[in-house]
Amino acid sequence: MKKIRVGLIGATGYGGVGLIELLINHPSVTIGALMAKQDINKPISAIYPHLKGFCDLPVFDPADPDCPDDFDIVFYATPDGVSQKGARRWLNKGVKVIDYSGDFRFNDKDSYASYAARIGKTKEHADPDVLPSAVYGLPELHREEIAKSDLVGNPGCFAVSCILGFSPALKSGLIDSKDIIFDAKSGVSGAGKTPSPTFHFPARYEAMNAYKVTGHQHVYEIERELSLLSGKEIKITFTPHVVPLSRGIIATIYANIVSNVNMESLTDAYSSMYGNEPFIRVFSHGEILSTTDVRGSNFCNISLNIDSRTGKLIVISLIDNLVKGQAGNALQNMNIMMKIEETTGLMYPGNFP
Amino acid sequence: MKKIRVGLIGATGYGGVGLIELLINHPSVTIGALMAKQDINKPISAIYPHLKGFCDLPVFDPADPDCPDDFDIVFYATPDGVSQKGARRWLNKGVKVIDYSGDFRFNDKDSYASYAARIGKTKEHADPDVLPSAVYGLPELHREEIAKSDLVGNPGCFAVSCILGFSPALKSGLIDSKDIIFDAKSGVSGAGKTPSPTFHFPARYEAMNAYKVTGHQHVYEIERELSLLSGKEIKITFTPHVVPLSRGIIATIYANIVSNVNMESLTDAYSSMYGNEPFIRVFSHGEILSTTDVRGSNFCNISLNIDSRTGKLIVISLIDNLVKGQAGNALQNMNIMMKIEETTGLMYPGNFP
Amino acid sequence: MKKIRVGLIGATGYGGVGLIELLINHPSVTIGALMAKQDINKPISAIYPHLKGFCDLPVFDPADPDCPDDFDIVFYATPDGVSQKGARRWLNKGVKVIDYSGDFRFNDKDSYASYAARIGKTKEHADPDVLPSAVYGLPELHREEIAKSDLVGNPGCFAVSCILGFSPALKSGLIDSKDIIFDAKSGVSGAGKTPSPTFHFPARYEAMNAYKVTGHQHVYEIERELSLLSGKEIKITFTPHVVPLSRGIIATIYANIVSNVNMESLTDAYSSMYGNEPFIRVFSHGEILSTTDVRGSNFCNISLNIDSRTGKLIVISLIDNLVKGQAGNALQNMNIMMKIEETTGLMYPGNFP
Amino acid sequence: MKKIRVGLIGATGYGGVGLIELLINHPSVTIGALMAKQDINKPISAIYPHLKGFCDLPVFDPADPDCPDDFDIVFYATPDGVSQKGARRWLNKGVKVIDYSGDFRFNDKDSYASYAARIGKTKEHADPDVLPSAVYGLPELHREEIAKSDLVGNPGCFAVSCILGFSPALKSGLIDSKDIIFDAKSGVSGAGKTPSPTFHFPARYEAMNAYKVTGHQHVYEIERELSLLSGKEIKITFTPHVVPLSRGIIATIYANIVSNVNMESLTDAYSSMYGNEPFIRVFSHGEILSTTDVRGSNFCNISLNIDSRTGKLIVISLIDNLVKGQAGNALQNMNIMMKIEETTGLMYPGNFP
Repeated sequence: MKKIRVGLIGATGYGGVGLIELLINHPSVTIGALMAKQDINKPISAIYPHLKGFCDLPVFDPADPDCPDDFDIVFYATPDGVSQKGARRWLNKGVKVIDYSGDFRFNDKDSYASYAARIGKTKEHADPDVLPSAVYGLPELHREEIAKSDLVGNPGCFAVSCILGFSPALKSGLIDSKDIIFDAKSGVSGAGKTPSPTFHFPARYEAMNAYKVTGHQHVYEIERELSLLSGKEIKITFTPHVVPLSRGIIATIYANIVSNVNMESLTDAYSSMYGNEPFIRVFSHGEILSTTDVRGSNFCNISLNIDSRTGKLIVISLIDNLVKGQAGNALQNMNIMMKIEETTGLMYPGNFP
Repeated sequence: MKKIRVGLIGATGYGGVGLIELLINHPSVTIGALMAKQDINKPISAIYPHLKGFCDLPVFDPADPDCPDDFDIVFYATPDGVSQKGARRWLNKGVKVIDYSGDFRFNDKDSYASYAARIGKTKEHADPDVLPSAVYGLPELHREEIAKSDLVGNPGCFAVSCILGFSPALKSGLIDSKDIIFDAKSGVSGAGKTPSPTFHFPARYEAMNAYKVTGHQHVYEIERELSLLSGKEIKITFTPHVVPLSRGIIATIYANIVSNVNMESLTDAYSSMYGNEPFIRVFSHGEILSTTDVRGSNFCNISLNIDSRTGKLIVISLIDNLVKGQAGNALQNMNIMMKIEETTGLMYPGNFP
Repeated sequence: MKKIRVGLIGATGYGGVGLIELLINHPSVTIGALMAKQDINKPISAIYPHLKGFCDLPVFDPADPDCPDDFDIVFYATPDGVSQKGARRWLNKGVKVIDYSGDFRFNDKDSYASYAARIGKTKEHADPDVLPSAVYGLPELHREEIAKSDLVGNPGCFAVSCILGFSPALKSGLIDSKDIIFDAKSGVSGAGKTPSPTFHFPARYEAMNAYKVTGHQHVYEIERELSLLSGKEIKITFTPHVVPLSRGIIATIYANIVSNVNMESLTDAYSSMYGNEPFIRVFSHGEILSTTDVRGSNFCNISLNIDSRTGKLIVISLIDNLVKGQAGNALQNMNIMMKIEETTGLMYPGNFP
Repeated sequence: MKKIRVGLIGATGYGGVGLIELLINHPSVTIGALMAKQDINKPISAIYPHLKGFCDLPVFDPADPDCPDDFDIVFYATPDGVSQKGARRWLNKGVKVIDYSGDFRFNDKDSYASYAARIGKTKEHADPDVLPSAVYGLPELHREEIAKSDLVGNPGCFAVSCILGFSPALKSGLIDSKDIIFDAKSGVSGAGKTPSPTFHFPARYEAMNAYKVTGHQHVYEIERELSLLSGKEIKITFTPHVVPLSRGIIATIYANIVSNVNMESLTDAYSSMYGNEPFIRVFSHGEILSTTDVRGSNFCNISLNIDSRTGKLIVISLIDNLVKGQAGNALQNMNIMMKIEETTGLMYPGNFP
């Protein structure tokens, strides 16, 4: 069978290398070219020595005319602002596109503008006409649209953990849609590969902190998805924290339950929505879930709890921010878009310890 | 000047060694005896080599008749259930007592029974008659009672961060007293010195998790203090998490603001209550606070934030769980009880990085 | 094709779970039964939640008559002293055996006795008659014997890094066989799953130390292998250290070069011995090798250096102690013994970061 | 008594902040001014929030004419190349100078040139005439010269651990002066405050590596000191490693013992040289020393071992690279130069855990 030919732009960042690690053992894929703006001409394995012998392809400047471009699908593992300028080139040739950034998570220019303002980018999208065709790439919510789409915006890592953790409770009407709080904790790899004083090892060792309190950009996509799901406008409180580990997100989610909700109805709601999901595992109150349970895997683990003293739902939702929160979820989208078994190349449990 | 003679029971745990580190350079104190149930007769510096040359006193069995007992004050750095059986002996001799555990955090037997049930202990306090004289040892709330007391129950580490972070907002009526949420994250040292599978290094490396969701025992003392402060019954939601670092607690606190509250009124409330506090530093929205800013010191750092989109107060409160959350706060209590300058032996900034 | 049926004794330790992680995706294997002395009847995925959905087999007591025993090969992922009492049962039935411990690393009873004395075990081997048939399971040195053997003693993790790092230099006569020093640094997972004060998270955080200076038990197998390889008796100095990370060993190896040795002759010696090895990657002076380059993979990375000022060879040898140092190497042995492609189920690069 | 007035250049790096932490509680010192090339005019406590309330002095550009300059002593906590251009200004005014870098560790221009070539700097010292008056600031070897000097070059952190660990063995003639090997492991803070890809948290988490194999610049000062001590030219092999923790160095030192050396003669040699040293603690074979035993303190812990099988001395030497390896040792030098008690402001045990 002819293999799917993949182009990867932004190959040298954490999102790029995470995808390469998965593609190496994906039975239906061949990597057509690796592209990036730095480390041009170096073999990727000179930058990431663990890939030596597995993938020694050189890094091309995407503008290099000698760079192969005969792909079936292109991944943009690039920061905000890059893919919106390049995606059309591929789409016009019939090549599908999956983007990691916020460039295609919003399918109208006004929503994009609100988002872009938050991250300090030009509010104007570079290619607003293509936006309506973009699909938000969370398979558990949009599988069918993803299957039909040529352009998918992969979700933000915090958004994956929050939306997956909360959707069944909201959709089933078990909670009051006001006073929803997401308290999220992330490992440092979520900040990417570029060194900074905040993520310098000695400064980060034994350091945890909240940041962007009341102002994180993932709020928009979470609110949009939750509003779509519930059919009314949802506003949320979201506080991100950085903790001194490399991989892993915990979102601790609080909402007020409506009367008569109990563990049984709650569990039913999650089973009903996620019963057939290959990458979601639901646990009940009392089971302790750790980020190591999902590290290196494409799973989202969810624990359900009710505080009957205060009438609160408390959901714990865990992912590996670089897998289900990024490269793994992107590959899941590719499998769906290319009409192959959705779990292909993704069924790894990770390593413990 | 005659030095204060200190007896320390439970000298070999983290709470004990943390106190010794501080007492070594305290100008008005001499250590009368170290006591513990293990490592009897060993010099403390054989157990904790960093103390070698600073404190080489042997560890006595507290039941050993040769153990000195001519103290001015005794610290119980022991687990729940120990000091309630021993405190009276010292009190009867006119020796003051500070206890780290929950044994003297509640001054009536019913409150104690509720607490004890939660931690799986006999509900009956061993010495209920002494309970009414016990004072909750949080100087910022009970300084004057502590000064008059002979028996102080040092607060739980989570409770310190939560109560200090939230009291001014509650006391000043700036928030609705319903829907108060404390999402707390702690380093591992809060679990003490005893090895366990959960805190085995490889199992804990890169592992973070929530635990005791809806069921942590510190809820009681937090609710009691907040209820006292506000004059009405307060119920809270509290979710503790363990993160893979040694020292540090962040409590992220959520509550609904009442109308017309803004950053100015909020800041005023905290200044009014904490303006003269030697160990509380208040920061405004946008300043990033890290646990390393309080590591090794007796300070509580607090940042104030309002999410105007959702009407939420968000307070970030940070302490070193072993200093302001334990030994440092206990020493602050001692200074108050012994009528010496409250900050004596406690003015260290900690080390960075 | 009929799948190889594997029995795994000691399934709940790190060595057991590491093998399960690999077997899950091994195309020619089915797991016949998991056995251990603890957590009997629990699904393995209740102990290790990351396995949920991948392997939910129950843990059997190996003495349970209901435990399946129709295996093609049995792995003992058990401490010293266990397999020597059980191996014969399997061998008599024609079932092959691979043992992780020191029980079958020595093929005569006197060598075993020296080793056993060092680790504080009874010197007498429980089944000395079977010892002569045991093969030391380091494929790079004993591939052909392993292929013919029914009983393989998997090497110690330190021994793998030291022997692989040094063998070509010794074999080719490029160094003086006196004054050989191995300075080894290991992550904590090498100590296994059992909690202890030394490996309690807070005590280990930011703590590194040397231990068993002059007295580590892996010295014996290293000296035996090096002596075999060089044809003369080799004595080595070996100092192990524990550093606060989970996985990874660096062995820094020092020896005196003989005259006229240079980087070229050195590189030739390593190429000559390892040119076709699937799991060894040799790097030259100046390339920085990190344990993360081999984490989660079955590779041994080696860097070659000469200090011409002092006439020293300095080799840096890196492995993941739980993969090439344990479960991965054991599986490589299985592939060889079962006459399937040696690299099957082992070609993973690991994840970065 | 008039306080010693200190000027600190390079106040915002780890070496600067480490000194400020100590000066805050030093009874005989007042900080005259903090200077740096970045963060000008900011209070130091805005850069390092743990100092808030302890030291809120602003950072001056050292070239600012408004910057105070009436100091008794100036510390240069700056990289190589800075103090050699500025020291004379202070010396001419009768102000003493202590420098952290390599600028004044060599007291002739040729030695400096060899060193400078190694670190890629101009070989020519900017002020060669002042070099002969510079003293190498290791109190345990040069206390009397330091007391008479106005210009002290504080040693490199690795050099402190290696020289202190090995000097008594060498001086007493207990070892062969050939084949001396220093295998050193350092925490990341030794690399300073500037972010880089190598020390980016996710890239460093669970990563350890050797670096500058055969080529580290501290070799020169170690060889110079050992040669001075033994009266003959010493050449050493030195391999530095970085491990993923913040503070701490272990130097594992290997040398061949001469005949008849045993633990007793070895211990005598160390007692004889270090018996009265306030900051050196010597331990015997079998005691496990961890970097946490010296973290946050000015101590060097040393363990002595003999491998009688191979005739090797093995010394384990531990320091906190930022205290005895930097700011603490510098302050010890200041105390000696200013004729106050050498241990003033330095007697802290550090915190455990």
